[in-house]
Order: sequence, then structure tokens, then C-alpha cells
Amino acid sequence: MKVKVGINGYGTIGKRVAWAVNKQDDMEIVGVTKTRPSYESSTALREGHPLYAAHAEDQENFDKAGVKTQGTLDDLLGKADVIVDCTPGGFGEKYRPIYEKAGVKCIFQGGEAHEMAGVSFNALANYHEAWGAPSVRVVSCNTTGLVRTLFPLQQAFGVQKVFASLVRRAADPADKKGGALNAVEPSLKLPTHHGPDVKTIMHGLDIQTMAVVTPTTLMHVHCIVAELKSTVTEKDVLDTWSSSPRVKLISGKDGVKNTGQIMELAKDLGRARGDLMDIAVWKDGVKVVGNTLYYYQAIHQESDVVPENVDCIRSMMKLEKDNLASIERTDKAIGLR
Amino acid sequence: MKVKVGINGYGTIGKRVAWAVNKQDDMEIVGVTKTRPSYESSTALREGHPLYAAHAEDQENFDKAGVKTQGTLDDLLGKADVIVDCTPGGFGEKYRPIYEKAGVKCIFQGGEAHEMAGVSFNALANYHEAWGAPSVRVVSCNTTGLVRTLFPLQQAFGVQKVFASLVRRAADPADKKGGALNAVEPSLKLPTHHGPDVKTIMHGLDIQTMAVVTPTTLMHVHCIVAELKSTVTEKDVLDTWSSSPRVKLISGKDGVKNTGQIMELAKDLGRARGDLMDIAVWKDGVKVVGNTLYYYQAIHQESDVVPENVDCIRSMMKLEKDNLASIERTDKAIGLR
Amino acid sequence: MKVKVGINGYGTIGKRVAWAVNKQDDMEIVGVTKTRPSYESSTALREGHPLYAAHAEDQENFDKAGVKTQGTLDDLLGKADVIVDCTPGGFGEKYRPIYEKAGVKCIFQGGEAHEMAGVSFNALANYHEAWGAPSVRVVSCNTTGLVRTLFPLQQAFGVQKVFASLVRRAADPADKKGGALNAVEPSLKLPTHHGPDVKTIMHGLDIQTMAVVTPTTLMHVHCIVAELKSTVTEKDVLDTWSSSPRVKLISGKDGVKNTGQIMELAKDLGRARGDLMDIAVWKDGVKVVGNTLYYYQAIHQESDVVPENVDCIRSMMKLEKDNLASIERTDKAIGLR
Amino acid sequence: MKVKVGINGYGTIGKRVAWAVNKQDDMEIVGVTKTRPSYESSTALREGHPLYAAHAEDQENFDKAGVKTQGTLDDLLGKADVIVDCTPGGFGEKYRPIYEKAGVKCIFQGGEAHEMAGVSFNALANYHEAWGAPSVRVVSCNTTGLVRTLFPLQQAFGVQKVFASLVRRAADPADKKGGALNAVEPSLKLPTHHGPDVKTIMHGLDIQTMAVVTPTTLMHVHCIVAELKSTVTEKDVLDTWSSSPRVKLISGKDGVKNTGQIMELAKDLGRARGDLMDIAVWKDGVKVVGNTLYYYQAIHQESDVVPENVDCIRSMMKLEKDNLASIERTDKAIGLR
Repeated sequence: MKVKVGINGYGTIGKRVAWAVNKQDDMEIVGVTKTRPSYESSTALREGHPLYAAHAEDQENFDKAGVKTQGTLDDLLGKADVIVDCTPGGFGEKYRPIYEKAGVKCIFQGGEAHEMAGVSFNALANYHEAWGAPSVRVVSCNTTGLVRTLFPLQQAFGVQKVFASLVRRAADPADKKGGALNAVEPSLKLPTHHGPDVKTIMHGLDIQTMAVVTPTTLMHVHCIVAELKSTVTEKDVLDTWSSSPRVKLISGKDGVKNTGQIMELAKDLGRARGDLMDIAVWKDGVKVVGNTLYYYQAIHQESDVVPENVDCIRSMMKLEKDNLASIERTDKAIGLR
Repeated sequence: MKVKVGINGYGTIGKRVAWAVNKQDDMEIVGVTKTRPSYESSTALREGHPLYAAHAEDQENFDKAGVKTQGTLDDLLGKADVIVDCTPGGFGEKYRPIYEKAGVKCIFQGGEAHEMAGVSFNALANYHEAWGAPSVRVVSCNTTGLVRTLFPLQQAFGVQKVFASLVRRAADPADKKGGALNAVEPSLKLPTHHGPDVKTIMHGLDIQTMAVVTPTTLMHVHCIVAELKSTVTEKDVLDTWSSSPRVKLISGKDGVKNTGQIMELAKDLGRARGDLMDIAVWKDGVKVVGNTLYYYQAIHQESDVVPENVDCIRSMMKLEKDNLASIERTDKAIGLR
Repeated sequence: MKVKVGINGYGTIGKRVAWAVNKQDDMEIVGVTKTRPSYESSTALREGHPLYAAHAEDQENFDKAGVKTQGTLDDLLGKADVIVDCTPGGFGEKYRPIYEKAGVKCIFQGGEAHEMAGVSFNALANYHEAWGAPSVRVVSCNTTGLVRTLFPLQQAFGVQKVFASLVRRAADPADKKGGALNAVEPSLKLPTHHGPDVKTIMHGLDIQTMAVVTPTTLMHVHCIVAELKSTVTEKDVLDTWSSSPRVKLISGKDGVKNTGQIMELAKDLGRARGDLMDIAVWKDGVKVVGNTLYYYQAIHQESDVVPENVDCIRSMMKLEKDNLASIERTDKAIGLR
Repeated sequence: MKVKVGINGYGTIGKRVAWAVNKQDDMEIVGVTKTRPSYESSTALREGHPLYAAHAEDQENFDKAGVKTQGTLDDLLGKADVIVDCTPGGFGEKYRPIYEKAGVKCIFQGGEAHEMAGVSFNALANYHEAWGAPSVRVVSCNTTGLVRTLFPLQQAFGVQKVFASLVRRAADPADKKGGALNAVEPSLKLPTHHGPDVKTIMHGLDIQTMAVVTPTTLMHVHCIVAELKSTVTEKDVLDTWSSSPRVKLISGKDGVKNTGQIMELAKDLGRARGDLMDIAVWKDGVKVVGNTLYYYQAIHQESDVVPENVDCIRSMMKLEKDNLASIERTDKAIGLR
């Protein structure tokens, strides 16, 4: 029997998680919620996902537009083993008691606080911490990106200290909100929350972060300085990442110089929606000076957490003990390998 | 036996045409050219396209990188029935004598002059003009967009006069060149070439155009005023386009308000690469005042001409007499219907 | 004795109007309001403008920051002959009864409805309509731009019909809000409000407009088609504009091809703040075909209405009977001539 | 007698240096060069700068346009004591022998190599190294920015080690070239040249840099981590910068959160052209953790080097022995104090 998964909030992340869940053979989507009819609710129906109104009062919006729903979130909770909360950041807290009352396990996204969920999750680094847990947070796109490349370094060489500058995209491509159109804005509250967030996964890591928002929609880019505990070569580092899951080595020499070209590469690779769920690291942008490693990586904010949500379901529902086995299963099913 | 198609220039347009050709059951790619190895030449190999160096002197680039080619353009011309020239605008003229000498039919793109090819092509409007022709030009993305919506209007109601303002995207998403970053630049030479270009297909149409380049990468947007020969309602116009091929009606009310959201919709529709090969027309942006029709449409510059190239091959190679039959066959094979 | 002018809302427009008023010899600023202390309230103080809290409840913000104010809007109204409302669009309606009760004449900006003010204003076209009026609206930047070039055409040649496509900037340069970062969004409600707005000044003109928002911050650009009543040459048109106030002819041949370069030109001209209060028309983008004139113009949204506000004060306060005399006086004082 | 200064290349930097030189009482512009007539050559004439053709062959461009010149660069060299080379990066090397042959001292900009000039210059840090020198390089905008804030830190507290991530603007506001429109591109060659460049001024400093180009035109932003040799508080650091020349403390709390708002502030301050020649440092973005200082600064790439060029002339021409005296004189004359 497949694990029954509901999605609360069928938007940028929600629709991708729904798609990825349905590609697996041990879980399936039993419904998704939406607050009003739109092209995205049409997408849900086209994909075969039962559609639910998020709240009773949203039902009217659907009725007016002649869009049939299967009920509300409460009805969906009655059918699901686990609910993936993909509502906007901060909303999860409001929904948590509802999920709890319904006795349904729940996964939150990185816009929520660690404390609220109790466990923060990355499939490679701490899969076991979510084992059987009632509620777990899949960390944000940026934190996921940092852990994907730092954890293998820590395993292989030890990491003394990390500093990262995050050059953030201001909005998603289809988002009407966002930062200033032609300006750069730093995150003045220092250190930014990204460092502490990484530590919810890689406990005890010495990491500091700064961040600026820039007028681009495609990807975040990180400039990372890592002081390692052992002397390494650039080749050692690249070899480590080559064998790490969900890290993709790219190269300026091959014409993949900027984030626009990375997105083009993802399309060329035939990836669904043109997403790049891997973290892209520039091979020719890796430099070691003494024990210090410098590297650049790019994060597809809309999709890198998607396979993490799938693995998180597996760990919470005790479907698979071994994290690497889960990762491989997830990735094969969605075309990452 | 399938018609053998070569692509000279496996870039933005070339790789899409190659993909679309291989999806058809009456034609196949026998090779594509590239001037140097890059992630796009890797794409060609991954897609199973035999790779050729564009010129003998390019061979060295491939050899250095250890990328095996099947020869040069000349070798490819020896194997192809028709070559689709997807080289940068203006290069076609240089290649034309080479294609001619090899006795291979050739298709040029909209960056070339009408006179050079002799025939300009749109599958809906003048399919028959390419019938058996040795060389044909598929018109540019903007001209294709104008013809796709204006031709049905002309058929249904007659068109007295057209004025269009083209709000152009400055560069393709993965392109490093392009217009000014935070400025708008008009095309000062008036009338712009777009009007005359439409007339290479819709002979005798009274059309004038102006154009500005804006700092966006996704789509062109047209503001169109058409004086019709009959009195119509907005519904008449929408009904006409509903039954026209490669026109997609979208709606701001459904949350598809801008070109970013159109591109998101294309992904939601599961379109390959997230392309929208149809012309998107805003239903709620259509207005009729007396005999004058106002409407907005958006053009996906990277892809709208792709199915036109496929139909053009069919007409030139006399594979299918009826244009609507060819259009349907093309579109079904590539997932547009 | 100078006319006493208050500014309600010392922001993008307010601070420019305050500066321009103080440059005149027949009027002076007696105070400006702000809702909270910021770098702009510091600007007001540096410029020597008495600072008032917009509302009694805003006073606390200033007290906390140790910024001394001279009272609230009510106090300012007690000192002013005329108040220029530069509050955000739509707020004017709320303030109108307050101004009225205080018996102070008031000027609104283009974000308010014509009906609310009763008279809409452009110094060249209908200066006399504001003569002695208690409340007047200075029309928006785009409407001002359209009137500045169309009115002289109408005077010289007669105008049959106008169509304009407005390519709008999404946000001001220092604005954090704004449109989508990398997308174009049409104004779907047609015809857009710009046409009717022009007619509040040029009564009876046959004009239709469409508009798209683009991701740029510098200027709006208009693509205009005007059917004239007489046969003209391009030289006739350019000669007309050469002798029209607040129209600046620019040229792509001189390197002024885009709106970024226009803004650079304004700085080179030594204009205060680098503003271009004139409407920029590209000389080499003017084309006449038969009776139809095509032209492009660029509008500096932050500043073109500023001198109009000054002239409007003169007309309302009966300081100068002749509009051209007022325009000359205004423009000389602020360095436009 | 005033020192006679020529400008080779009256563009973005050249026109600003010319303006600043003419504001001083101990030096004056005797001529500027341009390769072709444009709005910028009109600016030169309007500003009263004698205009010279850069090369004999450029003369024809000016003749055709009816623009009178005073001769060519060779003629200008006959009149100047010092020439400021503001030609595009890399061109200086070509001109150097010409300047040398004419026996004229020369200043190069940051686009040239240190070795070519022999001395690199920052007024605060190493004014004396240019004393009487025949050729000097004023370092780039980014390097100037790093030195302006790091040198005072080194003087006050000692600096152990610096790491900076440079978030670069892709093009100047009026520039048609530039980076990708909606993408971020890292400088893959690590360490980037900025660190070594700082060391041409602050010899022996341990500094490493990374850089990304982002689609904005206004300013560069630096994320800086400095390990200091003493324990400090945030107040100590801010006090140090408060008394350092050409550093301007700004505050997000005052509404100056992004680079667009900084540029607005510069206009509010009444700065010529709206330039901010100071380095802007966010007060509320300064954080000290142990001995490590984190801070953000913004660099106005078009103007921060301008006063440095003036001081450089003074040192090379032995006009003023004391660097702080020269800085004060320069800054007062151009309105920075």
C-alpha cells in the first residue's frame, strides 16, 4: 500500500512536490489544496490531483468559477497519512494545530522556524533524525544548498570554519512581488539566519553568512570560503562532490558561465519543468589556497528542496532505512539520474 | 522513407527544430553542426544527433576537447534532403551558395532577407507557396506572431489596416548579449521592418509597426490595433482565435497577467523545455470599439517558429498537401494538442 | 508678498515641487509634511523647509527620533495660501475635505480622479481653466507628456485621431515596490485610462491608448501614431516642437539611443537631481507617411509635472495672466532655459 | 599659476574628472579628447573645455558634423603638464609611449595594470608614493572602495586578514553593453584580481576576494569580513569611519536600504550629477563577533575615483605635501563637505 500524501498549498513548491511524489512507487498524492481557482488549480486537475479548498470560506471562489472541489483541507486530512505544508512562509505555524488535531504527520518548508517542527531535515546529512517523527521541517533552498556541498566536505576532510555570502534572487520568475528592480539590498541583520539554519542540520558547524538581494529571478549564487581540517587539492574536492548526490558540476569552459545558462542546461538535460534540483557548482571556480577552499554554487530556489520532501516522507513513514537508498530511489524516479 | 533533415547551427532555434523533427514520423535528423564543443554539443550527442563541425577549421576545437564528430557541414550536406539553416541572422546568405552547390533544399530563419530565400513562409497563411520550393524563409518570431492572429481575422472579417507596437525582449534567457540593463530603446528607423515582413506573407496588408527594446528576457509583447472590415463583437474575435491553430487564449483573471506567468503556465502545461510555441493572447485584454479591435499578444521568441519549420519541410518536400493536416500532425507529435 | 505654499507629502514629487517653488520669486514654501522621520525628512530640513507631521499620531515617530516638527498638517494649513497634495494616489480624496474646511486652495496630482478636483491642468494647453479655481488637478506624468507634444500639433496642423502605446517603467529608481522583475505586463482593461485623461485637457480629442509595464525604472516611452488634418513634413513637425515649451528634441545619432542615455544627458546638462522635466522626443524617430505621424517620446515620471505645479499655483492664485509668460518664468528659475 | 591638465577620453570618468579639476584653484583643464562628436562632446563644449580629436583620423568625424576642434591629442599634449588617461581599460598601455615622448606626466585608471604605471594610488593610504612621479595609476572603483574602509581599520586596530565578496553591477546606467539581463555570473578565475589590487596600495595585507556580476546598473556592493588584531566594538569601528574621509555612514533605519535609495540620497544631498563619491557603509549592517568584523559597503562605480584623481595630480605635481590637506581641499571644492 502506498503512503497517502496531501499537499496544503499547491503553488511553486507544492506543485513540484506533488509531481515528484506521484512519480514514486511507494507514495501517492491523495489531494492538494488551493485558496482560489487559477491556472494553477487547472494544473492540479490536469495532473489528476483531487482538488480541495484550503478553507471552508474559499469554497465560494471555486463555486463561482464552476470549479469542482472534493471538500476542504479538513476532508483532505481525513484521507492523508502525511501532509506536506507548502503554504507561504510563516503560515505553517497557524496550520500546525490543525494537522496535529487530525493526527496527520506533517512536513513544513524552510520558511518556518526550526523550533516549530522540532526536526530539520536534509536527506544526505541527517535522514535518520526524521525517522518516524510526527513533524519535520525541510530546510530552505539556500540551507539545502549549503548542506549539500558542505556535508560531503566535512565527511571527507573536516571543516574548521565556513563563511558564505549569499547573492539572492529577488523573486521567483512568475512572481509579481520582489525586490527593487535595479538595486541591490543587503540583509542588514547580521549574521543572517542562514548560518544558524545550517546548524539545525550540521550541528556545531562554525559558519557565518551575509546576504544581498539582487534583481534577478533565476537562482541564488553562493560565494563560499571553507577552511578545511586537512590539506586538499582542487581535484580531491571535485572528486568528493562528483560522488555526492544532488551536486552537479558545471563548467564555464563549456559555456555555462551564468545562471541563465545553467537554467538552459537544465532544459537541455530534459529535466521536468526545466528545473535543476541539484546544486550547481562551477568546476573552474573552485580554488584551494593552503587549507582554504573557495567555491561558487548556484541554487534553483524553486526546486532543490523537492526531492528532500520525498525522502523526508520516507523517513517519517519508515519506508526506507538507508538514506542513500532513498535518495537513489527518489532521484531515479524523477529523472535526476 | 523519412525525409532526411540536417541542421546547420545547433543553438537556440536549431536544437528545438531538431527535437521537433525527430518527433515526426515522416522526417528525421541526420546531423547537426556546431562550431565548437560546449554544453549544447553535449546536448546534441545526448539527443542522438550525429554531430558535425560547421567548418573544416572548427574540427580542431572538437579534437582538442576529445569530442568525436562525423565530419563537416559538407559531409552532412551529402546526407541530407533538406538543411535547416539556424545560423545567426545574416549568416544564411553566406551559406546559401554552399547549400545550392550541394543540391540540397534549404530553409532559412527570419534573420535573413526575404529576397535571399525567394519565398517567406507561415504554415497557416501561405503553406502552398513553399510547395516544392528549393529555398524558403520561415519568418521571424514576431512576424510569425503577427500572422498567426491577423490571418484568421482577415479570413473571418477582413482587415482594413493594422498598427502594432512591439515591446521586444532584449535578449534570450541564456544570452549574454542584449540591450541596456535598465533602459528602454526604441527602433528609430521607422516604419520598422516588421510591417513589410508581415507583407511577405499577407501580401497587400496595410500594416505599420513601431518597436522598443525592453530589459526582459522572456517574451515579446505586441500592442495591436486592427481596423476590421466588418462589425464584430469581442466574442466573435475570440471564437475565431479559439479555432485557429497555435493561438492560445490566456486570462489575467486566471492569474496569467504577465509574461513570467505565461512561461510558468507553459511549464504547468508540461510543454517540452517550458516553451510556448503558440501565440498567447489575453482574452480579457481584447476590446472592440466600433470596427477597431485592440489586443495584446505575447510571443515566445525561442520557440514559436519551431513547428513552422516542420511544416515548411513538409511543403517543400511535398509530404502533405493540406496545410491544416500538416499543422495538426506537427502539433500532435510535439505535444501542442 | 509671496504666495505661501505648503506641501502635503514630501516624497518623490513633493520634494521636487518644494524645490521648484522656492526657486520662484513670487511664491515660497511655508512647510512640508512627512509621516515619519527618514533621510527625506532630513532633506526637508537641510533645504530649509519647516517640517510638519502629517497627522497628530505621526508626531510620536518624530519625537522618538528626536526630530523637531512645527506641528501637524492642520498647523501648516493655517499658514498656507495653497497646499500641493503630493500624497500617494487616491489619498487626495481623503484630504480634500480637510483642505476645504481650512479654506486653503489645493492642487492634486495625477493619481487622483479628474472629477474630484473639477479642473485638470496643463500649463500650455489650458492654463486659463485653473484661473482662480479653488482646487485643480495637475495631470499625471504620462498625460502631461502626451499633451506636451499633441497640443502643439493640434494648434499647428489639427489632429484627427491619436493612438498611443505606453511602455511604462515599473517603479521609480528608489522604489522598492514595482512590477515583476523580468516580465512584461499589459494593462488589460482597455482602453486604458490615459486616453480619457488626455481628454480632460484636450477636450474632444479622438485618442485611444494601450499600455504595458516593463522592468525598468528610468522613464516611460510612448509609441505614438497621430493622424493629422493637414499634410506635413517631418521638418514641419520638428519645427513645431522646437518652439514648444518643455519638449526636448534628442537624437540617436548623437548617442542618445535609450532612456539610460537620456538620463545621462540630463546630468550632462547640469539639471538639478539629473531630472529631465522636458518631454524627450527622438528627432530621428519621427516619420510621416501621408497624413500620419509616427513618433517616440520618453517621459521622466519623477519630474515632468513639477513645473506644471508651479504654473498651476500662478493660475489659481492669479499671479500671471499669460500662460507662456508663466512657463518662461518657471523654467528660467529652475534652469530649464 | 595653475597646473594644466588634459583629459584623454571624455567619457564616464573623464567628464567627471574634468569637472572636478576645474573646481580646484590650483589646477585647470586645458583640453579634453573625444573620438567622435556626440552629446558628450557637446557637454565638453558647454562646460568650456577645449575639444581635441583623439587621433588625426578622428578629425574627419568632427568636420562632417561641423564640430570645431582645437587639434588632436598631440596638440593637447603640447599644452598640458599632466594628462589624465580616461580611455577604456587596456588602452592606456597603447598611449603611454605617446605621453612619455611628449614629456607629459600621466595618470592611468584602474583598468590598467599596476606594473604599467609603476605606482598605484589612494589619497588616504599612500599619497606620498605618487610624489613627483612621472606616471601613476589611480586604482579601480572597487579597490578604492576597499582601501577607503580597510586602511582606517588597519591604522586604528590592525587587520589580520580580509575576505570580501564583490557583488558587481553589470553596466553603468547609460551603457549599452553589460552582463546578462536576468542572470548572475561569478568571476571564475580565483582569487579575483581585486585582492592583489588592494595590495598594490596596502602592501602585505592578507586579503582574498570573490566576485559575481549581477543585473543592476547603480553600484557595486561588498560583503566584507575582516579579522582585526584588536578586540573592538561596533561603535569603535563606526567612530573610526566617521572621522575617515570619503566614507559615508548610511542607515537602513532611515530608509536607505538599497543602492537605489543610496543614489536617491546622493541627489537629496545636492551632489553634482547625483554622484556619491564617498563609500557608503551601512551603520546597521556592521557586526562584530569576537575579533571579526562583518560589514556591507556600496561603491558608486562612476565617481568614487574622481577626487582621487585630483589628489593624485597634486602629489605628482608637488602642489601639496600633506595628503589630508589635499583631500580636504579637493572635497570642499566639489561639495563633499
